[in-house]
Amino acid sequence: MTTITILGAGAMGSALATPLRDRGHQVKLWGTWLDDHLLDAVEAGKPHPRTNVLLPAGTQLFRSDELEASLADSDIVILSVASVGVEKVTELAAQRISEIGALVVTSKGFVTDTDGTIRLLPDAITSIFEGLSLAVPAIVAAGGPCKANEVAAARPTATVYGSSDIEAARAAARIIETEDYRVETIADFVGLEIAAPLKNVYAIALGFADGLAETSTQPWHNLRSAFFAQALREMADIATDFGGDAATVYGLAGAGDLEVTGLSGRNKVYGARIGAGESSALALQAMIDAEQTVEGVPASGLAVVLASQRFESPAERLPLLHAIRRVVDGEGDALAELISAALPRALSERLA
Amino acid sequence: MTTITILGAGAMGSALATPLRDRGHQVKLWGTWLDDHLLDAVEAGKPHPRTNVLLPAGTQLFRSDELEASLADSDIVILSVASVGVEKVTELAAQRISEIGALVVTSKGFVTDTDGTIRLLPDAITSIFEGLSLAVPAIVAAGGPCKANEVAAARPTATVYGSSDIEAARAAARIIETEDYRVETIADFVGLEIAAPLKNVYAIALGFADGLAETSTQPWHNLRSAFFAQALREMADIATDFGGDAATVYGLAGAGDLEVTGLSGRNKVYGARIGAGESSALALQAMIDAEQTVEGVPASGLAVVLASQRFESPAERLPLLHAIRRVVDGEGDALAELISAALPRALSERLA
Repeated sequence: MTTITILGAGAMGSALATPLRDRGHQVKLWGTWLDDHLLDAVEAGKPHPRTNVLLPAGTQLFRSDELEASLADSDIVILSVASVGVEKVTELAAQRISEIGALVVTSKGFVTDTDGTIRLLPDAITSIFEGLSLAVPAIVAAGGPCKANEVAAARPTATVYGSSDIEAARAAARIIETEDYRVETIADFVGLEIAAPLKNVYAIALGFADGLAETSTQPWHNLRSAFFAQALREMADIATDFGGDAATVYGLAGAGDLEVTGLSGRNKVYGARIGAGESSALALQAMIDAEQTVEGVPASGLAVVLASQRFESPAERLPLLHAIRRVVDGEGDALAELISAALPRALSERLA
Repeated sequence: MTTITILGAGAMGSALATPLRDRGHQVKLWGTWLDDHLLDAVEAGKPHPRTNVLLPAGTQLFRSDELEASLADSDIVILSVASVGVEKVTELAAQRISEIGALVVTSKGFVTDTDGTIRLLPDAITSIFEGLSLAVPAIVAAGGPCKANEVAAARPTATVYGSSDIEAARAAARIIETEDYRVETIADFVGLEIAAPLKNVYAIALGFADGLAETSTQPWHNLRSAFFAQALREMADIATDFGGDAATVYGLAGAGDLEVTGLSGRNKVYGARIGAGESSALALQAMIDAEQTVEGVPASGLAVVLASQRFESPAERLPLLHAIRRVVDGEGDALAELISAALPRALSERLA
């Protein structure tokens, strides 16, 4: 029997218990110091509050002060904490993860280095091990269109595991995948790590178009679809600049993940509020009041910084990203700027 | 003043009167022998029945027996008839179009040659001129996420004009585009012509996932998004086999158009009926009863023939296309076959 430790008992961490228990593995789900109320609900026999699905029978729960026990005898570790907690939790578990030699990461987000440089999450995790003088494990990044509530409910899901150590990705896939939770393995973790936070940013624009339709008699589907295509173009541009593969962005990890994020989720809802006429400040406040984190908001700021660090004319090269950032900041005429960013410039303008 | 003749007074033909009149052009809209009831409504001052939008003032209407008058003094011709009418209408107007030297085509669809070979529409149109011993005009294919009702309502739209004669595409764009109807010009008409009919086929799968959600407590967004990514992959595979550019499929003409087609439209609705439990035969009958042509149904058959003509193992290479065709034909277990086609195969199965 394989023993798997999941670090983080939020939506995705708890959801992965479903395929893992389906495979008959021993599953140890560790909650951070922020997850106590989630584990309380689960222990009371209620559905997990984030997925609304019951945890599979036999899942072993560990509280934040039981990290060592949760990692004992573990064959593989999955890191599923919110991006702000990645550094701290990785440090706490680093010794054991280093011994195991592999780490699957579902956490996502850009990381700001001490010198202000924006880095990809696996690179930042690597630095943590190096800083502790520990052997760096193979890091397997998990992405793709993979909403946690559907994984928890055993809905069919195609996910992507990317690692520069493709054999590590394959080994992890072999342990975790089921008929319902299937894994594509790729060597390009870069494209995956670029697309994962950025799709939250671009989903704000998709939501914006949906919001426009709420207050008018005609849909704005043509515009929404222009946003979609432009988002793919910009994500591919950034990914290839980082040495990643455009095909990753055009596949499950980019197009697939943007599609699922545009169908539902907080970023889309936040964008829809703005599209329907709310100010970005009020829209964000409404989301906060409903305890809904809108990951695309901070990610848009980090992405703009990242773009400024890597490109000479970032706003010309990534117009939709920058237009979304201005919408988030409540600057300018949101509709006009988004249209201008996503639609081809009129020929007359280009030829002028 | 530029004079533009639009052949076909259906949804897209009539919709293009909006940008063209916005530009101040003289617009001559010719209806086929099937369009009389549409022009009757327009002449009675009603919105166009297909777009629910009033035609712009000054649009000149021509009935099917007034083709010659509609083409007189025309500077550019736009062909916007249903794909079944392309050959007939092109023949009727060929002399004048040949003189003008350019033809913009919004009609879409695969064409079956006399020997059964599936061809792209511009190639078939070229043959018509050759068969009449007329100079072949530059053919500009128009695609992208461009729903007619939104074009008619001057909603922001990004469209793509593709032509092997890129200067002809640019010249047409320069005449037609407005702030609301913007045109990207590309030299790859092949990717565009592959994606345009195929997106209707793949939208059936997107609708299927929506239909599944109608009858269950959880959405099936992960599966829908896996369909989306797999559809792009297969369209790009076919396009490149024809010598087209994968970037076309990953841009407005493919990803953008698939997105808009999955948001609404008949193919998606038809797929949703099946996903919600109706047989494909009953679902099609319901669409026919509502006078809704489901273009993806015949296109799926033509695409399967096309695949068999070009690939050695078409079903292995294009699994989602073939699964959709079997769903349309009412064969097999629709859900199981679609999942199997769009999700990565389990590693265990691949390694077996």
